[in-house]
Amino acid sequence: MSELKNDRFLRALLRQPVDMTPVWMMRQAGRYLPEYRATREKAGSFMDLCKNPELACEVTLQPLERFPLDAAILFSDILTIPDAMGLGLYFSEGEGPRFERPVRDRAAIEALGVPDPEQELRYVMDAVRTIRRELSGRVPLIGFSGSPWTLATYMVEGASTKSFARSKGMMFDEPALMHTLLGKLADSVTAYLNAQVAAGAQALMIFDTWGGTLTPRDYAAFSLAYMQRIVAGLTREADGRRVPVILFTKGGGQWLEWMADTGCDALGLDWTTDIGEARNRVGHRVALQGNLDPCTLYASPDAIRRAVADVLERYGKGSGHVFNLGHGIHPAIPPEHAGAMIDAVHELSRPYHA
Amino acid sequence: MSELKNDRFLRALLRQPVDMTPVWMMRQAGRYLPEYRATREKAGSFMDLCKNPELACEVTLQPLERFPLDAAILFSDILTIPDAMGLGLYFSEGEGPRFERPVRDRAAIEALGVPDPEQELRYVMDAVRTIRRELSGRVPLIGFSGSPWTLATYMVEGASTKSFARSKGMMFDEPALMHTLLGKLADSVTAYLNAQVAAGAQALMIFDTWGGTLTPRDYAAFSLAYMQRIVAGLTREADGRRVPVILFTKGGGQWLEWMADTGCDALGLDWTTDIGEARNRVGHRVALQGNLDPCTLYASPDAIRRAVADVLERYGKGSGHVFNLGHGIHPAIPPEHAGAMIDAVHELSRPYHA
Repeated sequence: MSELKNDRFLRALLRQPVDMTPVWMMRQAGRYLPEYRATREKAGSFMDLCKNPELACEVTLQPLERFPLDAAILFSDILTIPDAMGLGLYFSEGEGPRFERPVRDRAAIEALGVPDPEQELRYVMDAVRTIRRELSGRVPLIGFSGSPWTLATYMVEGASTKSFARSKGMMFDEPALMHTLLGKLADSVTAYLNAQVAAGAQALMIFDTWGGTLTPRDYAAFSLAYMQRIVAGLTREADGRRVPVILFTKGGGQWLEWMADTGCDALGLDWTTDIGEARNRVGHRVALQGNLDPCTLYASPDAIRRAVADVLERYGKGSGHVFNLGHGIHPAIPPEHAGAMIDAVHELSRPYHA
Repeated sequence: MSELKNDRFLRALLRQPVDMTPVWMMRQAGRYLPEYRATREKAGSFMDLCKNPELACEVTLQPLERFPLDAAILFSDILTIPDAMGLGLYFSEGEGPRFERPVRDRAAIEALGVPDPEQELRYVMDAVRTIRRELSGRVPLIGFSGSPWTLATYMVEGASTKSFARSKGMMFDEPALMHTLLGKLADSVTAYLNAQVAAGAQALMIFDTWGGTLTPRDYAAFSLAYMQRIVAGLTREADGRRVPVILFTKGGGQWLEWMADTGCDALGLDWTTDIGEARNRVGHRVALQGNLDPCTLYASPDAIRRAVADVLERYGKGSGHVFNLGHGIHPAIPPEHAGAMIDAVHELSRPYHA
C-alpha cells in the first residue's frame, strides 16, 4: 500500500493536531458534477454504475481531481445489503430506490440470510480495492453503510416513504419481529464494514438517515442499539493505524450524548445543531463532522465564505473537527460553489490550529 | 356567546388544574375521515372548501361528532395570507400547494401589501364566526396561521420544496430582502390572528412547519424573531378570558428555551423530543402540547394505548399538558384508531390530575 500523503482527515477524527481543518462533502461524487453525469450516462442505470468497480472508482476520484478534498468516499448506495439479501433493488426515475420483494412478515424476515461480503457484495469490495489502489495514498478512503433502522425502513416499505406506515406499524405492533430484522441487519452491516476495511477502507461511516424520525425511546431501542452493536464488532485497526468510525443520525441533534457513548470516534452533525454547543456536550469524547447547511451552497461565494467562517468560529480552536455539509450536496449546486466552500475551510481554519 | 361547557383545553394551556388531560389532533378535520372526503367532494377544489364558510364549518365539526375532543380547530389552509396578498394559491393533485405568482425579487416583495382580514380574508373570518356559533360552547375554537418563515418559503419557491433552493438562497444572499418579506408577513399574521380572535377564536396556534430546516442562528433571526413579534402584537383576552397562544416549530426540539422566551403560553412538540425532558427545560414557563408519533396510529388499538400511557407518564403529574400528535394525522389512519387514542388519553390521564 502507498504511504498516506494527507492524513489530516484521520488525525482530526482522532482529535490529533492538524495544520488546517480537513474537509469533504457527503455525496461529493454526485450529480452536481458534469463529469459524474457523463460517467453515469455511460454506465446505464445507477445500479450498473454501483456494480462496476472501474466506473465506481472513476466517479469516486472525480471530485478529488477538481477540489483539494481531504478524503475520498466509496461510491456506492446505502441499499446494497438488502439487495444482496435478495430483495431486488432498482431505481425508478424521480422516485428513488425500490425493492421488487419487500419483507413484510415473519416468513420473509426469517428467510433472510447475512450476505457474505466477498460473495454477494464482491462488487463493492472490488470497488474499494480499485479505489484504494488508484488513490495511491493521496487521501484516506471512507467506507460506509446505512444503519440497520434505515435499511429496515426501505426493506419493509419497499420504497422511499414519507409516512413510515408499514415500517413503524411493524415496530409498534410486532416489535420482536422488527428486532429480528434489525439483528440480521446489524450482523450484515458489521461483516460488510469489516470487509471494506480488509479491502482498504481507512475510516467508516454509518448513515442513519431515518433514525431522526423516531421518538427518543424508539431511537434508542430500534436504531442506536444496533449501531452500538455494529461499532462493538468493527475492526478498528488496519495498516497499523486506527480506523475511525463516524456515526451520523440526521435529525439526531438531541441524542448526541447517547451517540457518543456507543464507542464511535466521531459524530456527523446536521446543520440544525450548533457545532460549538455540540462540542461542549460531547467533544471531550468524540470528534465532530459537519455541519454547514447544504443550502448555503446555493448562495454566492462571498456568502458561502461567511457561512464557513461562522461554522469554524463556532467549533473554535484545536483539532477534532472535520468540515462537511450537514447532509449531501444538492444536485443543482454549481461545482464552483463547492470549491469556494472547500477553499474557505482550508484558508480560514489555519488560525484555529496555530 | 354561549357559555363554554368544556374549558379543559384552555385551562391546561394556562397550567390550571383539570380533571383529565385534554386532547385534540392536528388535522383532525381531514382526509382520514370519510365524511370529510364526502364534503370535500361536494365542495369542488380544496380551496373551494376553505373559502366556503358553511362547508368549512361542517368539516371543522365532523371530528367532534365522532370523538370526545376537547378543542375544535378552524378548517383552513396555512397559505391563505399569501393568497390574499395576490399570489394566486392553487392545489395541483398530488403535488401540494402552488402559487401562480411567486415573489422572487425586490420589486415583487415591495409591491406586497398587508391584507385586511375582514376584506381579502373575510371568508376565513366568516368561517370562524359560523363555527363559533355552531359550536354552541361545546369546546373552544382554535384559530391559526403559518409562521412568517414558513409562508415565505412557499411564496419564494412557488410550491412545496425539499431543497429550499430559492428561499434559502435569498436568505443567504439577500438577507435584508428576506427580512422585508418576513416583516410584512409578521404584520399580516398579527392582523389575521387578531381578527380571528375578534371573530371568535379562543386560542391561537402558529405553525412553523419549516423553521426546523434552519440552523440555530438562522432560526433565531429568520423564524423565531418574527413569531416573537407576532406574539407581542396579539390580543390576549376575549370574553373575559385569556386567549392562549401556542407556538409549534416542527423539528424545533433543540430550541424550546428560546421559544418559551417569546411570551407564548404553550409550545407544540413533535415526537422527537421527550416531553418529560421538555417539561424540565421549560415547563415552569409554558404548557406543552403533544407529542405522540403520528405513525403510532397505524398500529393496533392496544399498541396505541401503551404509547399514550408512555407519553402521559413521561409528562407526569399535574396540569400543563395538552395531548396531541406530534404532527398532523396521516390520511390513511383508520378513524377508530384515532378514537382509541382519544379515549386512552382521557381514561389514563385521570390519575395524573388526582
